[in-house]
Amino acid sequence: MVMKIGMIGLGKMGGNMVIRLKNGGQDVVGFDRSQEAIDHLVSQGVAADALTSDMDRFIELLGEPGQRAVWVMVPAGQITQSVIDDLAGRLSAGDVIIDGGNSNFHDTQRRGEALAAKGLHFVDVGTSGGVWGITEGYGMMVGGPDEGVERIRPALEALAPAPDRGWGHMGPTGSGHYVKMVHNGIEYGMMQAYAEGFELMKAHQTFNLDMAQIAEVWRHGTVIRSWLLDLTAEALKNSADFDQLSDYVADSGEGRWTIIDSIELGVPTPVITLATQMRFRSQQDVSYQGQMLSAMRRAFGGHAVKT
Amino acid sequence: MVMKIGMIGLGKMGGNMVIRLKNGGQDVVGFDRSQEAIDHLVSQGVAADALTSDMDRFIELLGEPGQRAVWVMVPAGQITQSVIDDLAGRLSAGDVIIDGGNSNFHDTQRRGEALAAKGLHFVDVGTSGGVWGITEGYGMMVGGPDEGVERIRPALEALAPAPDRGWGHMGPTGSGHYVKMVHNGIEYGMMQAYAEGFELMKAHQTFNLDMAQIAEVWRHGTVIRSWLLDLTAEALKNSADFDQLSDYVADSGEGRWTIIDSIELGVPTPVITLATQMRFRSQQDVSYQGQMLSAMRRAFGGHAVKT
Amino acid sequence: MVMKIGMIGLGKMGGNMVIRLKNGGQDVVGFDRSQEAIDHLVSQGVAADALTSDMDRFIELLGEPGQRAVWVMVPAGQITQSVIDDLAGRLSAGDVIIDGGNSNFHDTQRRGEALAAKGLHFVDVGTSGGVWGITEGYGMMVGGPDEGVERIRPALEALAPAPDRGWGHMGPTGSGHYVKMVHNGIEYGMMQAYAEGFELMKAHQTFNLDMAQIAEVWRHGTVIRSWLLDLTAEALKNSADFDQLSDYVADSGEGRWTIIDSIELGVPTPVITLATQMRFRSQQDVSYQGQMLSAMRRAFGGHAVKT
Amino acid sequence: MVMKIGMIGLGKMGGNMVIRLKNGGQDVVGFDRSQEAIDHLVSQGVAADALTSDMDRFIELLGEPGQRAVWVMVPAGQITQSVIDDLAGRLSAGDVIIDGGNSNFHDTQRRGEALAAKGLHFVDVGTSGGVWGITEGYGMMVGGPDEGVERIRPALEALAPAPDRGWGHMGPTGSGHYVKMVHNGIEYGMMQAYAEGFELMKAHQTFNLDMAQIAEVWRHGTVIRSWLLDLTAEALKNSADFDQLSDYVADSGEGRWTIIDSIELGVPTPVITLATQMRFRSQQDVSYQGQMLSAMRRAFGGHAVKT
Repeated sequence: MVMKIGMIGLGKMGGNMVIRLKNGGQDVVGFDRSQEAIDHLVSQGVAADALTSDMDRFIELLGEPGQRAVWVMVPAGQITQSVIDDLAGRLSAGDVIIDGGNSNFHDTQRRGEALAAKGLHFVDVGTSGGVWGITEGYGMMVGGPDEGVERIRPALEALAPAPDRGWGHMGPTGSGHYVKMVHNGIEYGMMQAYAEGFELMKAHQTFNLDMAQIAEVWRHGTVIRSWLLDLTAEALKNSADFDQLSDYVADSGEGRWTIIDSIELGVPTPVITLATQMRFRSQQDVSYQGQMLSAMRRAFGGHAVKT
Repeated sequence: MVMKIGMIGLGKMGGNMVIRLKNGGQDVVGFDRSQEAIDHLVSQGVAADALTSDMDRFIELLGEPGQRAVWVMVPAGQITQSVIDDLAGRLSAGDVIIDGGNSNFHDTQRRGEALAAKGLHFVDVGTSGGVWGITEGYGMMVGGPDEGVERIRPALEALAPAPDRGWGHMGPTGSGHYVKMVHNGIEYGMMQAYAEGFELMKAHQTFNLDMAQIAEVWRHGTVIRSWLLDLTAEALKNSADFDQLSDYVADSGEGRWTIIDSIELGVPTPVITLATQMRFRSQQDVSYQGQMLSAMRRAFGGHAVKT
Repeated sequence: MVMKIGMIGLGKMGGNMVIRLKNGGQDVVGFDRSQEAIDHLVSQGVAADALTSDMDRFIELLGEPGQRAVWVMVPAGQITQSVIDDLAGRLSAGDVIIDGGNSNFHDTQRRGEALAAKGLHFVDVGTSGGVWGITEGYGMMVGGPDEGVERIRPALEALAPAPDRGWGHMGPTGSGHYVKMVHNGIEYGMMQAYAEGFELMKAHQTFNLDMAQIAEVWRHGTVIRSWLLDLTAEALKNSADFDQLSDYVADSGEGRWTIIDSIELGVPTPVITLATQMRFRSQQDVSYQGQMLSAMRRAFGGHAVKT
Repeated sequence: MVMKIGMIGLGKMGGNMVIRLKNGGQDVVGFDRSQEAIDHLVSQGVAADALTSDMDRFIELLGEPGQRAVWVMVPAGQITQSVIDDLAGRLSAGDVIIDGGNSNFHDTQRRGEALAAKGLHFVDVGTSGGVWGITEGYGMMVGGPDEGVERIRPALEALAPAPDRGWGHMGPTGSGHYVKMVHNGIEYGMMQAYAEGFELMKAHQTFNLDMAQIAEVWRHGTVIRSWLLDLTAEALKNSADFDQLSDYVADSGEGRWTIIDSIELGVPTPVITLATQMRFRSQQDVSYQGQMLSAMRRAFGGHAVKT
């Protein structure tokens, strides 16, 4: 099946998705304020007249009112809010707005109510897969009203690894972003588990182990084989590059939101939480708690402390 | 290449490995004290005269002294020790003993020294893959002297998912069991990350999410796809069965040893540690720390506590 | 110095505070909807005509408009909100409302703005000390505008362990409840540290240690002596009673809010967080994550699991 | 009661204990290889002829064979072992050796057996109180045979905060060091709880809170008042000094041993463990796990990472 769909935001994620949709036979148009993003997509083979930095023009390209569908793929937060506000004023009852970004599910629930009041269908798609999605397909967790989800089914089937795999309609509005949020929390925990194990083996110098070899061996036949391990094995192949990396680990909102949800629900999530808090620790230049512990040790024990 | 190899211990792991070795063209003989285990393997197509519950006979079946290789696949600890002690008295310089079980690497290092003093080659193989290894191949982390490892290469190549994948020579004696130990520590962390995420989604009742569907969707295209997730998705398909499971989670030695190693080396492993400690918690009927906290709360706050 | 002050909520905390204020020479009146709470205070020597279950009468007892001060000591949340709403309609510019309960500091900040708009002074007092406060004095963390805080200074000095100890003006509205919130988070961490240590010693059966003796010994001269330990030692004296306690550990909002604040600020708080999450765990009858881990273990290892 | 007792090791701990013993009316002699340590004690009023750097002389000063008591206060590990080995050769049946240091209880149990075989009484004393012990008394957890403990009772009563407080006979040999080990584990947890709370309040800049004021307020009337908090409040008074402290937090063996014991016994100790692991983290210059997480993020998400 073929559908017409517009993409707002042609960056790393949105741009790749335009290409995968086009390759999947969909009729896709795109908007980005940046001409550079548009030029890049044109260089990748997307027709120039399907891309625009003019919002009025973009809306025209979407087709008939009541049949239009716009996939918003911009940073979560204020930018997503203002794009959706703008679209709400331009689109009509029956049109579909998809938020494919990493929005907080509370925001999504609120937006869903506001858009439903205008007769718009709001579909939230938690999208996983990163830069590999263009070739391997995207994992997509979809929330929203049945009609909206059904309307964009051709796009979802084209973006997924296969039409019947790697995507699903989770539940009402917000559930897609919610499940994606938990997905990312789990991801933090898994990443930290691997990283701890490798750091430990590195520190156990008796055996002089080869991290790249171990990661490669573990990819096949073991209980802990995974796609993250595949990527890690690849990254370890060039250790010279690896050694130059900072140990600063950024975190996006989802890990934090997962923890907050678990606290509100009273569910113990020690692994997801610790994985996230170790990132916080990595982001500190000087740890005030460390200084305080040094001060205490000096106070009761006369322990020499570093200054 | 073909080699002759003897397997001691024809249980769930050892028995399956005999079959995979045979299917891989190796000349394999087996020993188990249990006739039942032997009968089971015969029913699976292994020649009856290659299996025995008589240790003298088993040693005869192994072939020429100095060329023999015995793979020990019995429970770690005292049983492994006594089997190796027995073999050490029966075998000769140049023979190879493989410990394929989950022995503590400190024990392995000690045993390696003792056996090397007698001219025996001792190879430790951390073996992963569980009940699926017979069809998918085993992930194997190998430690020991080069000569010993090279001698059993045909067996390793037959047991692995492919001759050049899923196994590797990690380093000196003990390193195979060491890397397998860390593998299991990581496994605990990953399992706990998934379990926390699913428990959270289950508890977030607003969306009435379908755990089986989510696990299935996540298997394709997402960052957290893995073999553990494949198994989890399969297990969730029959929720009636799932609901009857106990929440008691056993732990084998490896998680504990991983933590002890990290403590001795001063490496922070919060995720692996917490994953293991949550298992400890699951193993308690009554938590004394919980009782003490109740007592404290009552003492300072006059809080009503359950009795 | 003497001031007139009204107390709303004459339960375990509020009732005791009325008595301590009276003993401290303050002119205190009280309101509670429950005649039983009033009767109890009368039996403790509080004058019957200073107590009422009639709100109109209570307001009359407070004295001159613009000079009145009301201390609200009711459960956080909806009840606190409705009491404050009611008071806001009855009091006048210049009057002071104190929230001595465990309100969330975000609510307090919001209420402070609303009340300031009406010319009312809103002071938040995080109050610690539990049932012992009546004799030992209350630790109080005070937030709010200078004028409001100064107006109630006589009451604070009477409630505190000493006029110049155990209380302080932390900062603007909300800061009192905020510091009290963190205080409770720390309390969770400390309690859990003790409880883990005692559980460990209990489990180490070789030494057959006496928990009550240890707690008593630790109270003097050691680095970990504290008031919580004093209470624990007392509780341990009657071990027969102790053994009958449930291991269910309730948690109030403050621990959760502390964690949420730390997540929002990106500050690592592993100890406070884990202490709280272990309480969550204690509150579960069946752990879904435990069931899932059992299911995984069975799936990959054929491990026997409890059902 | 008065007894004669010899102290080996006149450093920060042992030297202060000599003074407290002397002030407590005990007949104490001391040995240290360092003349500087001896001179310092003499300057503090200890008689020069009671102190020596000559071991033969020291043994003479101890009095009659079979009635002698030597308190060893030297660093745990090899030094303690060699001092005890030396003493075992010089002393006779009926003499008492006390290990007042932070030895591992497994070592203590082993040493106790070896010394008992020679008729020597071996008493282990876990000693808490740090540099404050000289004035406030030492908290002491005592293990060993009844006869040995009774023989040194006068010394214990003089060292304790009061004759009947702050010390106790915990159980057989090793139990004193064991309980002290757990004491230190709890200490780590408590310190970390405070440090997390203060770091959080420091980071919550809205309220511009004064850490020194908060610590001082919390010392009186609150649930979390403790001796550690007293010291912290004192340390915070000079914030200029505080800000110059390193955030590197050393750890002694006891925290690690506590965790290892908990792992071996299967007791969940998340707070003690995390408190210790955060110290490990503080000791790292570059975190390899941080680098690995950066590498993974770049691999799957194309996330920009710091280099």
